[in-house]
Amino acid sequence: MESRSVANIIQRGGTILKTSRCKEFFTPAGRKKAYNNIKKHGIDGLVIIGGDGSFKGAQIFSNEYDIPCIGLPGTIDKDIAGTDFTIGFDTAVNTAVEAIDKIRDTADAHDRLFVIEVMGRDAGYIALHSGIATGAENILIPEKKTDIEDIVVQLAEKERRKKLMNIIVVAEGDEFGGGNEVAKVIKERLPLLEVRVSILGHIQRGGSPSCFDRLIASRMGYSAVECLIQGKYNVFVGIVNNRMHYMPLNEAVKKKQRISDEWMKIVKILAS
Amino acid sequence: MESRSVANIIQRGGTILKTSRCKEFFTPAGRKKAYNNIKKHGIDGLVIIGGDGSFKGAQIFSNEYDIPCIGLPGTIDKDIAGTDFTIGFDTAVNTAVEAIDKIRDTADAHDRLFVIEVMGRDAGYIALHSGIATGAENILIPEKKTDIEDIVVQLAEKERRKKLMNIIVVAEGDEFGGGNEVAKVIKERLPLLEVRVSILGHIQRGGSPSCFDRLIASRMGYSAVECLIQGKYNVFVGIVNNRMHYMPLNEAVKKKQRISDEWMKIVKILAS
Amino acid sequence: MESRSVANIIQRGGTILKTSRCKEFFTPAGRKKAYNNIKKHGIDGLVIIGGDGSFKGAQIFSNEYDIPCIGLPGTIDKDIAGTDFTIGFDTAVNTAVEAIDKIRDTADAHDRLFVIEVMGRDAGYIALHSGIATGAENILIPEKKTDIEDIVVQLAEKERRKKLMNIIVVAEGDEFGGGNEVAKVIKERLPLLEVRVSILGHIQRGGSPSCFDRLIASRMGYSAVECLIQGKYNVFVGIVNNRMHYMPLNEAVKKKQRISDEWMKIVKILAS
Amino acid sequence: MESRSVANIIQRGGTILKTSRCKEFFTPAGRKKAYNNIKKHGIDGLVIIGGDGSFKGAQIFSNEYDIPCIGLPGTIDKDIAGTDFTIGFDTAVNTAVEAIDKIRDTADAHDRLFVIEVMGRDAGYIALHSGIATGAENILIPEKKTDIEDIVVQLAEKERRKKLMNIIVVAEGDEFGGGNEVAKVIKERLPLLEVRVSILGHIQRGGSPSCFDRLIASRMGYSAVECLIQGKYNVFVGIVNNRMHYMPLNEAVKKKQRISDEWMKIVKILAS
Repeated sequence: MESRSVANIIQRGGTILKTSRCKEFFTPAGRKKAYNNIKKHGIDGLVIIGGDGSFKGAQIFSNEYDIPCIGLPGTIDKDIAGTDFTIGFDTAVNTAVEAIDKIRDTADAHDRLFVIEVMGRDAGYIALHSGIATGAENILIPEKKTDIEDIVVQLAEKERRKKLMNIIVVAEGDEFGGGNEVAKVIKERLPLLEVRVSILGHIQRGGSPSCFDRLIASRMGYSAVECLIQGKYNVFVGIVNNRMHYMPLNEAVKKKQRISDEWMKIVKILAS
Repeated sequence: MESRSVANIIQRGGTILKTSRCKEFFTPAGRKKAYNNIKKHGIDGLVIIGGDGSFKGAQIFSNEYDIPCIGLPGTIDKDIAGTDFTIGFDTAVNTAVEAIDKIRDTADAHDRLFVIEVMGRDAGYIALHSGIATGAENILIPEKKTDIEDIVVQLAEKERRKKLMNIIVVAEGDEFGGGNEVAKVIKERLPLLEVRVSILGHIQRGGSPSCFDRLIASRMGYSAVECLIQGKYNVFVGIVNNRMHYMPLNEAVKKKQRISDEWMKIVKILAS
Repeated sequence: MESRSVANIIQRGGTILKTSRCKEFFTPAGRKKAYNNIKKHGIDGLVIIGGDGSFKGAQIFSNEYDIPCIGLPGTIDKDIAGTDFTIGFDTAVNTAVEAIDKIRDTADAHDRLFVIEVMGRDAGYIALHSGIATGAENILIPEKKTDIEDIVVQLAEKERRKKLMNIIVVAEGDEFGGGNEVAKVIKERLPLLEVRVSILGHIQRGGSPSCFDRLIASRMGYSAVECLIQGKYNVFVGIVNNRMHYMPLNEAVKKKQRISDEWMKIVKILAS
Repeated sequence: MESRSVANIIQRGGTILKTSRCKEFFTPAGRKKAYNNIKKHGIDGLVIIGGDGSFKGAQIFSNEYDIPCIGLPGTIDKDIAGTDFTIGFDTAVNTAVEAIDKIRDTADAHDRLFVIEVMGRDAGYIALHSGIATGAENILIPEKKTDIEDIVVQLAEKERRKKLMNIIVVAEGDEFGGGNEVAKVIKERLPLLEVRVSILGHIQRGGSPSCFDRLIASRMGYSAVECLIQGKYNVFVGIVNNRMHYMPLNEAVKKKQRISDEWMKIVKILAS
């Protein structure tokens, strides 16, 4: 079996195969068509890289048509139970860091306030990691209530001292609803302040994968092929404490994150 | 005279010196304060890197206080008369290209329509160059009337064939008023279409300078120092047809671009 | 205490402070001078980022002059006991991956054999990670005996089929002594083969730090400052199984790596 | 005619098509085989991207088989007559600049001397541009005699002041024969000096093309297709003074460069 090509494809996710959400697949007729295509091409098993939505579809399909399915965590948001790492997160967060570094060049030069929105509807990991890595003054994430009064007081004080340079990194799913909303709240309280907003957006979903992402993809892909060879069905392959971790595919649901207290303390100290 | 440090500072623009628009400088008292600071630090001449606004201020100052001022074109928009190149443009446009390449990864994988706004309030050069370099299907710039009907017809036809993948690069100063407005116009005509908007924003103003920008900055900086040594006053230093080009600073105004017919033909063919 | 500046300096390692090996420090007179400088500047404790050599010096100094010293792992080779991660490794390995990707463009286009040497005198981690991430056909590291006969047979077979494209990643401390030596061995056995050698060298020691390196540096720096505040002496701060891990500084010696069997299996399969 | 695909292929050079030197093509039998392949695939004309060697082959072929051939300058060395720019140069030189920036991080931190070899057997353009852009203290190129005594005196003086930090950029075809040879000459004269050598090598031939390279490739590709449509034979397409420039393919020979006096003065001042 040509494991290499499997590993390589896994490193690039579903992007090469041009797979994406397909409404037809939600119907029995659509799944029948998929099954026929699979058989026609001599495919004996599937490796699904995605989130809990993809895994649910895989299981229904697997139950109906007796095709073994292995799930790998492929999401830039790092919000799946049963794994410490997800394929794509490290690449996305490095892209965010490079972009924020570039914006900081302007913020530093002109003492400006920037609100920068990064991806993360339910999980604040991209905001947390990119914010700490770029020395952001404030980081707003869905997992934690934001003391906006505190931020407003800080900004007013900085403005008074003519040292406004300040970067606020916001997850799109924070309690205010993303970068534009946070800027609006600040403008309401401090109408004289100039607030610039930058929504990093889809640049976070592309680019050449980082070394870390390629390595975990290689390890997971290797394990997925092993599972298929061993005749396992509907297994989710993750990495926990640096070891491969297997569990039933239906348990690989979206995980409600808990950001560790250590991170929260670091963020607080960095912001003070 | 330590020319090297001059060249190095020029390569990074005013960013290191933390210069920026200063309202005080618009008043006689503010300029007097600036003059006193200059004398205190033993500075005999100024090299101003910026656009026509900076040059106007430099001339008023030079007239009032007999300080020689040399102007170098420093704008990412490439919209100054008297020079083929401006310091910062090549870096900005490469940043835009890298970002659009990353977005295209998603557009390709999922057959999506993206409207991407790049900088350029009065000049479409960043849009034109980054759009051609990334194979954008359409490029909307201030210098040219856009046939939006034509674009709508193309998109409808692509949607019909389920091959929507399309990238529209828009200068912020295009006739519709930037990326969000272009998306709105398309949505009005094709309400069923999913349109994603990405505003690249301030990432275009930072980052490590490209080799090309460093080289023209070195050449221009070298010439600026030569001008100062020769006792020249209020000269603008540009590059035309790959040779140094000098003219009075007050003629270095914002230039109304004319995009060459050759480019327009290439854009048209690439879009067909 | 300004923890932020500590964290920022840590992210860039000793590079900013221009610290480096200093022969004077090996003498009692040199250490006395260092102590006087430290007192003059009101410094109460030291955070040393480096390898076991730096830590040994720190301990002698700490014993002689009652200055608390905290050690953080700062080496691109990832070969220190008591930590899973070292500051600088992730940045170095991403630089190596980007360079190998660029070389592969040529190798692919012209079906050529490249021997690429990466850093690592005693440890093969950079070679292992960058080699797997770039799909290298062979990876030669100090921790594992290389079956050069096997490689020669593979290459001869590929040459026969006119499909020579092959990348061999070699740690500088592999059993043959690095890239040039490996190329020589291959040329002796297959004199007609064209072998190109690329020594990546010092590019691996510079550049903007990756997000991962900045994060572990922030965590470790935060913990180092905590240790100093708590009055701890001569502690080494690492991260094991994603938790902070403390141990006496004198135990933070150069670690003889054991590459896991899982990696060795993946390398073998990728190479087949 | 699908001009777009032509432009895209041109942007990546021959890399995608996996064309490369083919010894068979030097024989009449080989060219006959090539012609048959071309006819079989319905190809009516050829666009050759390369240097004077490729163009010579193209002309012989064109004369023998009545296939129109258009030549575009594709060399990272920028050494072809009849054009100011060559496809690939800007990408290569930016790669060199990024690599030298990374090496400078180490040189700065530890006050070290680095000799860095860049590509360029007959032409020093990569060395000249990357050296100026990175503020190299010395630049050694084939087009200009090097005063090695002068460099040795400078280095000895720097060593005496314990400020050795120095970067020497060397074209592989300089009068001493590249980086290792230059280091040897310096070591002979200053045996106590530590000299580090870095050969950037093949990383300069790969990577994603810069915006500038994509644009000139698009313009040249567009013109090449126009030439074919107009029935022109054996034309070389270049850009001179920012306009398309056409000449007979047999005149597109390797050009002996003349580095302008302006550059030489800038290098001298930067080095002082």
